[in-house]
Amino acid sequence: MPPKSPLAPETFPDLPVIAGVRLSAVAAGVKYKNRNDVMLAVLDPGSVVAGVFTRSATRSAPVLDCQAKLAGEGGEGAAILVNSGNSNAFTGRAGDGSVAAICAAVSAATGLPEERVFTASTGVIGVPLPHDRIIAKLDEAVSALSTEAIADAAGAIMTTDTFPKGAFAEVSVGGQTVKIAGIAKGSGMIAPDMATMLVYMFTDAKIGRADLQKIVSEANARTFNNITVDSDTSTSDTLMMGATGASGVDVTGNADFATAVEDVMRDLAHQVVRDGEGATKFVTVTVTGAATDADARTHALSIANSPLVKTAIAGEDPNWGRIVMAVGKSGAAADRDRLTIRFGDVLVAEKGWVAESYAEEQGAAVMKQPEIPINVDIGLGDGSATVWTCDLTHGYITINADYRS
Amino acid sequence: MPPKSPLAPETFPDLPVIAGVRLSAVAAGVKYKNRNDVMLAVLDPGSVVAGVFTRSATRSAPVLDCQAKLAGEGGEGAAILVNSGNSNAFTGRAGDGSVAAICAAVSAATGLPEERVFTASTGVIGVPLPHDRIIAKLDEAVSALSTEAIADAAGAIMTTDTFPKGAFAEVSVGGQTVKIAGIAKGSGMIAPDMATMLVYMFTDAKIGRADLQKIVSEANARTFNNITVDSDTSTSDTLMMGATGASGVDVTGNADFATAVEDVMRDLAHQVVRDGEGATKFVTVTVTGAATDADARTHALSIANSPLVKTAIAGEDPNWGRIVMAVGKSGAAADRDRLTIRFGDVLVAEKGWVAESYAEEQGAAVMKQPEIPINVDIGLGDGSATVWTCDLTHGYITINADYRS
Repeated sequence: MPPKSPLAPETFPDLPVIAGVRLSAVAAGVKYKNRNDVMLAVLDPGSVVAGVFTRSATRSAPVLDCQAKLAGEGGEGAAILVNSGNSNAFTGRAGDGSVAAICAAVSAATGLPEERVFTASTGVIGVPLPHDRIIAKLDEAVSALSTEAIADAAGAIMTTDTFPKGAFAEVSVGGQTVKIAGIAKGSGMIAPDMATMLVYMFTDAKIGRADLQKIVSEANARTFNNITVDSDTSTSDTLMMGATGASGVDVTGNADFATAVEDVMRDLAHQVVRDGEGATKFVTVTVTGAATDADARTHALSIANSPLVKTAIAGEDPNWGRIVMAVGKSGAAADRDRLTIRFGDVLVAEKGWVAESYAEEQGAAVMKQPEIPINVDIGLGDGSATVWTCDLTHGYITINADYRS
Repeated sequence: MPPKSPLAPETFPDLPVIAGVRLSAVAAGVKYKNRNDVMLAVLDPGSVVAGVFTRSATRSAPVLDCQAKLAGEGGEGAAILVNSGNSNAFTGRAGDGSVAAICAAVSAATGLPEERVFTASTGVIGVPLPHDRIIAKLDEAVSALSTEAIADAAGAIMTTDTFPKGAFAEVSVGGQTVKIAGIAKGSGMIAPDMATMLVYMFTDAKIGRADLQKIVSEANARTFNNITVDSDTSTSDTLMMGATGASGVDVTGNADFATAVEDVMRDLAHQVVRDGEGATKFVTVTVTGAATDADARTHALSIANSPLVKTAIAGEDPNWGRIVMAVGKSGAAADRDRLTIRFGDVLVAEKGWVAESYAEEQGAAVMKQPEIPINVDIGLGDGSATVWTCDLTHGYITINADYRS
């Protein structure tokens, strides 16, 4: 077990209770011993659920099942069951069978129809999921359901994570308050689309399914889809958000609510990067002046995914030449002689040339910080994008040359 | 200086003399001390030159200069001057000035017109090239020109390489023999297009410029453009091939000659991968059954560039789940349930499922080999591609978190 990331928040946040959501965590021994590895969430009748998922062509059986069920209208409440230790991915027809068996058992234990039971699995790929172990613990999980158990749930879904991840927001709408709380797991195999993770968010706001889906999809494009640890994309990426309506406050069309959802998602996305395998630096890559926003994102991801950029950052080396290289190889439009590169506020290079004002000590000082802003202006247009990543260290090699994920 | 790669050939090959080509190597102290860092090659009048270059949008000044000159017809002979230690990339107008100064000086020293002088520089990016040091050594380089100095030249162009790289072929054409000899450098920042390297090849065959260019471009697409060490692409990639015609043997339209050129290029390309920074495994990724050849190459590069696949190989872990992941994320067409994966001849997974016949010891035995074949059939069509790469190790991190390239 690697030590806690040096970039981890000091404490897990005190997440608010979301009325209409009960959670529990139990130890089913799917793979890990002596720890919780299953979380159950049950949303009251009237809840709606939205979601976004990996676009991998080799998505796991639970992802395919969730996507099919989300197409329905719902409204009857929902259950979400997640296990860690085994991803039930590339497990053939047996994988579909495990999903069906779990959904039937959760339906029987909770009284919800099967089409309102959503599952996810995270861990080793290609090993049959011992779903009997999970089903044997369902009664215990249902009995333990509580409005206070979200922190336990955040712990149960961890795999190589070194800390549990949570975030929340409260929004005032017409003098009344609605709450949003979310948890996430993920630390490797992290890249768009969408960062390799499981994310569950809940709110007591009242909103239609389609409206919630739109908010979640749009915020996802600016948050989880703009983080990368290692450019690898999981077969199991899942983000689901349930709205119970228990507050009675209708947030349809409310911009503050949408902003708060995005804020919680960005917070969780940053925590995933901060727990990037072996990470010692949190890096924000901002590209401006690209021909289009899409070009800006292409450049930013090329920089953020470059092993040579990431190892330079690990070595606290202000190696801006590697950033020029990454811009050049991205495939998006660029002109060597119009590039401007800044580390934080330090002007490093401009007009195809190191800046006259630049001294290497200035860049080196920025590189020593735990949080490093890399700002690149392409000099061609108005396109911009921000991507978050971490460095590439010996820790990443140690974790991934040994861990069988 | 890292130790010699465990994947290196035992010895540098005994390259044949190519009539009409004279080379030399001198120590100009561009950056390195006490070693040769400049090579000069002079091709006799009547030679033609072809080339392929990086497609980076931030290409170096020498690359831009070579591309402009190659558009001319030539035929008057040629000189090629290469320095290591400084790439003269992202050096603004001063970079163009260095190229012009070197070309003028080589022209004066050799009597060739400036438009027949080609240069390349490899090493640190963004630092002005001290071209005076090179120019001061030109008379010495011209005096030392010899038909026997190709091995010295291969040594002079090395940067982080742990061994010099050479390959050759002889082809019988109508009862007469033509010779091909090539040298290369490169070990990091290696990815299409085209692998970060400098490659110089020579032949005594007689052939037109356009025909030679066509052979070189087509072979490049199947060799150097299909290798990757770290997915990063240099701003200086250059491959040039000169044909002196000194053998008097016309190879126009001769398929054996084209095959021999491709064989030499593939040999050099493999040597670059074998010298991949930190490499301990030479990996051949072959994808068949893709919808198109382009899709097959996309899948193969996605596997070869995946940090999780590469670290698994470093750990000798037969982690086929990560290969499923890499196929899934590539963006090219795939169907989870039609994939077949083999490590060497060992059938690992098929029909969306681990193969019934597979035992982990079989996969583990393949992973222990220094050369690892990964064979993936997509099950959708007839498209195929082969890509060569190496593993991702602590050695890569050590080299790149410290070395200022």
